[in-house]
Amino acid sequence: MIIDCHGHFTTAPKELRKYRDAQVAAYAAGQRDGFADLRAFSDEELFRDLQGEQMKLQAQRGIDMALFSPIAGLMGHHLGNEAMSRHWSTTCNNLIDRVARAFPKNFAPVCQLPQSPGVRPDNCIEELERCVLELGFVGCNLNPDPAGGYWTDPPLTDEWWYPLYERIEALDVPAMIHVSGSCNPNFHHTGAHYINGDTTAFMQLLQSDLFATFPNLRFIIPHGGGAVPYHWGRYRGLAQDMGRPPLSELLLRNVYFDTCVYHQPGVNLLSEVIPVDNILFGSEMVGAVRGIDPETGHYFDDTKRYVDGLGLSAEDRLKVFEGNARRVFPRLDARLKAMTN
Amino acid sequence: MIIDCHGHFTTAPKELRKYRDAQVAAYAAGQRDGFADLRAFSDEELFRDLQGEQMKLQAQRGIDMALFSPIAGLMGHHLGNEAMSRHWSTTCNNLIDRVARAFPKNFAPVCQLPQSPGVRPDNCIEELERCVLELGFVGCNLNPDPAGGYWTDPPLTDEWWYPLYERIEALDVPAMIHVSGSCNPNFHHTGAHYINGDTTAFMQLLQSDLFATFPNLRFIIPHGGGAVPYHWGRYRGLAQDMGRPPLSELLLRNVYFDTCVYHQPGVNLLSEVIPVDNILFGSEMVGAVRGIDPETGHYFDDTKRYVDGLGLSAEDRLKVFEGNARRVFPRLDARLKAMTN
Repeated sequence: MIIDCHGHFTTAPKELRKYRDAQVAAYAAGQRDGFADLRAFSDEELFRDLQGEQMKLQAQRGIDMALFSPIAGLMGHHLGNEAMSRHWSTTCNNLIDRVARAFPKNFAPVCQLPQSPGVRPDNCIEELERCVLELGFVGCNLNPDPAGGYWTDPPLTDEWWYPLYERIEALDVPAMIHVSGSCNPNFHHTGAHYINGDTTAFMQLLQSDLFATFPNLRFIIPHGGGAVPYHWGRYRGLAQDMGRPPLSELLLRNVYFDTCVYHQPGVNLLSEVIPVDNILFGSEMVGAVRGIDPETGHYFDDTKRYVDGLGLSAEDRLKVFEGNARRVFPRLDARLKAMTN
Repeated sequence: MIIDCHGHFTTAPKELRKYRDAQVAAYAAGQRDGFADLRAFSDEELFRDLQGEQMKLQAQRGIDMALFSPIAGLMGHHLGNEAMSRHWSTTCNNLIDRVARAFPKNFAPVCQLPQSPGVRPDNCIEELERCVLELGFVGCNLNPDPAGGYWTDPPLTDEWWYPLYERIEALDVPAMIHVSGSCNPNFHHTGAHYINGDTTAFMQLLQSDLFATFPNLRFIIPHGGGAVPYHWGRYRGLAQDMGRPPLSELLLRNVYFDTCVYHQPGVNLLSEVIPVDNILFGSEMVGAVRGIDPETGHYFDDTKRYVDGLGLSAEDRLKVFEGNARRVFPRLDARLKAMTN
């Protein structure tokens, strides 16, 4: 089967964005807690564009299932306060839960966390446990910069994050390292902040012994790993100059890359330098780039075509499209096994 | 001939770093102007490691000349105040001037600018004019984040920068977009901040019509363009989704990439997606990565090998190694012509 490890509910009803805008406006006007709940959408409202766009494209492209999380650009951890982030995260995760229950063959649920700048990530444990233990979520998204482009919280390798990592490791749910929108005018969100977040996270991990402390912690770095595979020689060389172990030992038991790179030469490079066991098929569809590439006549984000274009062996193809995802997300594997029984 | 468009005076006497440390300490202790001058180095002191390392490696690798600027990681625009930045920039540029006068066949001088966070870049014009008009410098380095990893100044496309661009354009000196050290613990300087700076600058340019206003402004984005060539499809797609012209029209008359990518697959990708007219040979040597790649037995930063490995036609090879640099840096071309007359 074909598992897309990177999908967001970008086809949610447009009213969700209006609701969020109103929440942000309420905060600006002085509200600090007791935020109004989202109106209960009917199934028809909630699933209309999901079925009309997302699932239609899945079918057209031959994608069986997506790991599905709330809209990354809308997580907006930098907005409001911790109470608002918690309320909004719960709201979004509950929508994902409904999607995954209605279409269990198409979507496996992944949660956002109620991060807030300056707030210890311990605050995320309760929502993570609710999602994983009560609702059956299989993974989470972790924002390395809750400040939305100002990077004022500690690096991912700081002990600041350890209580959350302990819980993530114990629950055996991997985290996709994924920033949200940028409130810094220097950073376009999908064109700079996303890619920078990926590159930054990788280099933080390279400098640290985090995985000696948390050997079962697993991170997916999306968008093809940011700049990392393109500069793989630089990273190998920096690690060597710093007296670190080879990257294969230091990071590649715990760090994975998706295939959200929107042209064939990029996916070729990814496949050339990153071991096949560390690559998970992902498309970020419907998402960052929505148009058709005039050079190919196909959608930029139809990344399955690029992976098909690699000419992988049957064994490697199975790893990238299914096996690696099932291995990295054990709760996804259990879910799939339970569905076929 | 072989022109390396990206070299820094990293082989300057170690005493320079001590002097800078003392200057930073003086600022911390309350000094705000009247900073002590650097001791006058003898030629022997100043050129010892330059000749022993930099020029030796140039000769070994077959590099005829480098565009040579002060140590990028030491520009430290975020340190001190504008007066200190001015004093330090003048100090460093004067050392470059001495190098270029002593070894005019090996080095063409490129200046750093006395940027300071929150200070209008107009303040850089005087030092730029001194370097170009009095000392014969051929280009400058422009820091898109004088805040050293906190990105608190306006994007490169903001009118904030326009008076400096007017002068850069009038002097016909291109600017390499190059951040300096990072004071943000999230960003390793050469492993994250440099690459992020490159990616960020490109996306800022993609969003704007800066080159309609300054048609003769030319930027070199170093380190192979950060993440940009690897995500070239993403950038083509984002531009298209935003209703922007094709990147070839929008940016490629004004934006150039160097070849500071430290493995063959990365340079292959760069050459595959970026037009040959927009690629300038660069090595960043002696710099970010100093070791030998155990996979090849050669120095990671011996980027000439990777360019040689492309198997370019004689015409394209001439462009990448010499012609593009002479075209993009007209004052370099004039300097070379004057030397051969």
